[in-house]
Amino acid sequence: MRLVVIGGVAAGMSAAARARRLDPALEITVLEMGETVSYGACGLPYFIEGRVPDWRSLIVYTAEQFREQRNIDVRTRAEVTGVSHARRSVRLRSGEEIRYDKLVLATGARQDRTAIAGLDQPHVFSMNTIPEAMLLREYLRTARPDHAIVIGASYLGVEAVEALRAHGWRVSVVHGGKHLLKRDDAFLTDLLTRHLSRFHVEVRPGVCVRTIEPDSVAGVHASLVVLAAGLKPNTALAEEAGVELGSTGAVRTNERMETNLASVYAAGDCAESIHLITGRPSWIPLGTTANKMGRVAGANAAGRRARFAGVVDTSIVRVCGLGVGLTGLSETRARREGFHPVVTRIEGLDRARYFRGRPTTVELVADRSSGRLLGGAVLGDTGVEGRINVIATAITRRMDVEEFGQLDLAYAPPFAPVWDPLLIAAQQLIKLLGSSV
Amino acid sequence: MRLVVIGGVAAGMSAAARARRLDPALEITVLEMGETVSYGACGLPYFIEGRVPDWRSLIVYTAEQFREQRNIDVRTRAEVTGVSHARRSVRLRSGEEIRYDKLVLATGARQDRTAIAGLDQPHVFSMNTIPEAMLLREYLRTARPDHAIVIGASYLGVEAVEALRAHGWRVSVVHGGKHLLKRDDAFLTDLLTRHLSRFHVEVRPGVCVRTIEPDSVAGVHASLVVLAAGLKPNTALAEEAGVELGSTGAVRTNERMETNLASVYAAGDCAESIHLITGRPSWIPLGTTANKMGRVAGANAAGRRARFAGVVDTSIVRVCGLGVGLTGLSETRARREGFHPVVTRIEGLDRARYFRGRPTTVELVADRSSGRLLGGAVLGDTGVEGRINVIATAITRRMDVEEFGQLDLAYAPPFAPVWDPLLIAAQQLIKLLGSSV
Repeated sequence: MRLVVIGGVAAGMSAAARARRLDPALEITVLEMGETVSYGACGLPYFIEGRVPDWRSLIVYTAEQFREQRNIDVRTRAEVTGVSHARRSVRLRSGEEIRYDKLVLATGARQDRTAIAGLDQPHVFSMNTIPEAMLLREYLRTARPDHAIVIGASYLGVEAVEALRAHGWRVSVVHGGKHLLKRDDAFLTDLLTRHLSRFHVEVRPGVCVRTIEPDSVAGVHASLVVLAAGLKPNTALAEEAGVELGSTGAVRTNERMETNLASVYAAGDCAESIHLITGRPSWIPLGTTANKMGRVAGANAAGRRARFAGVVDTSIVRVCGLGVGLTGLSETRARREGFHPVVTRIEGLDRARYFRGRPTTVELVADRSSGRLLGGAVLGDTGVEGRINVIATAITRRMDVEEFGQLDLAYAPPFAPVWDPLLIAAQQLIKLLGSSV
Repeated sequence: MRLVVIGGVAAGMSAAARARRLDPALEITVLEMGETVSYGACGLPYFIEGRVPDWRSLIVYTAEQFREQRNIDVRTRAEVTGVSHARRSVRLRSGEEIRYDKLVLATGARQDRTAIAGLDQPHVFSMNTIPEAMLLREYLRTARPDHAIVIGASYLGVEAVEALRAHGWRVSVVHGGKHLLKRDDAFLTDLLTRHLSRFHVEVRPGVCVRTIEPDSVAGVHASLVVLAAGLKPNTALAEEAGVELGSTGAVRTNERMETNLASVYAAGDCAESIHLITGRPSWIPLGTTANKMGRVAGANAAGRRARFAGVVDTSIVRVCGLGVGLTGLSETRARREGFHPVVTRIEGLDRARYFRGRPTTVELVADRSSGRLLGGAVLGDTGVEGRINVIATAITRRMDVEEFGQLDLAYAPPFAPVWDPLLIAAQQLIKLLGSSV
């Protein structure tokens, strides 16, 4: 019995490792087109920034470790050019064919480079892979800081801003949408835009870049351009093999990470997951989700019955020193999904005032008729990850605002104020819900 | 209609403020025996340590503010010596009688000083009130650092250790029990005892102090003694008025904070609350709980129908730099409560390794038959409050370990590792539960 995994980063290596743990007899082959497997792609912005001096510290396990310690046949520079499910085999660029009994597609995401002209100029960079990050870092080390433009305002875009600022560059962000961080939340976008401008980072929404000129983008001078937009699920091989895609453009899977083809699984950034609040498929490419999906795909490929529960779309990012945590639905999105949202935004303290307490903003969204919590945002100095995770846990279990407002949260002056901002926000929301009945 | 509140700290002032907000016409009188109301008693250790230079910064609102801005008749140095519920009146030490229609008992906790002889010596201190804390701080400022003994190993005891060490004193902790932090968890006690010994703090369990000698306690030299044990609910007035106590020794209330007497409520450290996991009354004197109970009592006294959901016994404390968060039941306690607990303890990282990730220990307890999470502990450098709050939220909603292990928690290198220690612990626990079936 042979398991073949296409893709050796988060989802792929999680799948292979899990399958090995559950079935020591399985033959497992991982095919990775790049030179390294199992690296923390989320750490690349910090490598570019310089905080992570050596890219090797982003490697969790090497291909050799997988081969020697786990008996997993990991092949790097092994580009798969085709999948024939009828013959149960994959074809490598070298011409070699490898047969499989079970197949895990973990081909990740790719950047769409067709929509913009001029991407191949020497001052234009991406930061999706280690080689790309190395090129950018080398450029930053040798070029004189001037004006950089980041195309895209999602997480990657914001992380690129941080990395470039650390090198002394003036940075502008241009993006085609209205909102930052892929969240249709005008309050959040306003607050972050103002915060960024305090750090001399200009944000230009609604700019659809078609061409990168040698010294400008959309009329703004730029001696460095970082492309942080256009991420798409990498589904070319899947499609060729006859694997169905979902409405999001990513591979459609069930909760066992099974595709429409028998014995073929998909996991990670190439696959959809179920959004636990809307109940509908979503495409949310994130490292944590990829790892969880990979584990489930690997377990099922090894003959177990594991399921992936789904996501509530939790994320966190640092924006010029400010922690920004998001989960669930924004007010606008909740309305679009058929809820009747009520929203509140409050400012509290992250710790006791006499313990260097700093302002923390909490946004909570609930459904008017049921009182059910639908989403939230937390912005602050410390404790952002903890507070957004509490909201994520509550919405996963369909908690209503009443119960949320009475949560028995930890309190001591070095860690929190006696009224946690989460509870203050809940009280405010209960008042709004009450008066609306 | 007049509401009288006995006690003007957390629960009492929360009750008064809430009642005022809901009923502008209510006559509200707060009777506080001390000189200040509405102070952050939890900040006293940090005042003693010196981090909070001025005790006035612990005051949230002054009596004047309550009088002028909220029309609440707050009287300090107003000691209530008796309650006659038949006549609906309280009697002050001054002889004055005040009639009430509704009464909130928020008399707090008191330290039992009858069990130990020698407490009135000049080198023996408590730290429950602002005057007590001021006396201790004055002593620390003038006395030569030598050896201090803290009696008691609950939160207050540990916080006293931190405060004394900051002044250069060598500290020993003696306590009558087996475990630290009131948690019957040998693993936790061991780990903390070893941690404290690294900071030259000696812990002597099983020592029942009966007498404090002029220069020693239980045979150990001491030129300073801090009493941080013997906290009891302060129920003398309640009992005299005919209010029933519960099995914990604190005032028995229902979820509306009503006592057995009509129109008499109790809230805060003098009252019981329902433990959401055992379903039984518990006495857990904590500032956050006191505030929540006070709000509910105040709302009901003002004619609304509010309820207090109960507690899961969440707490957090810093022990020589180590954050220690606890919630729910320990393994031992779970067994005593009739569960069949399975426990796991893992060490993970609080953040990505390349982002100064530091070790974090997570303990999770679940019920073998249902898989339901029952409790947990988190010990670490950063993120302790957030992780313990996620466990608290999960156990409040009776989450099982399977669902917990798939929580969509926030990830970015500055905030968390890609596999959060909570999820690693859950995976470990799932394995243990699985193999036991």
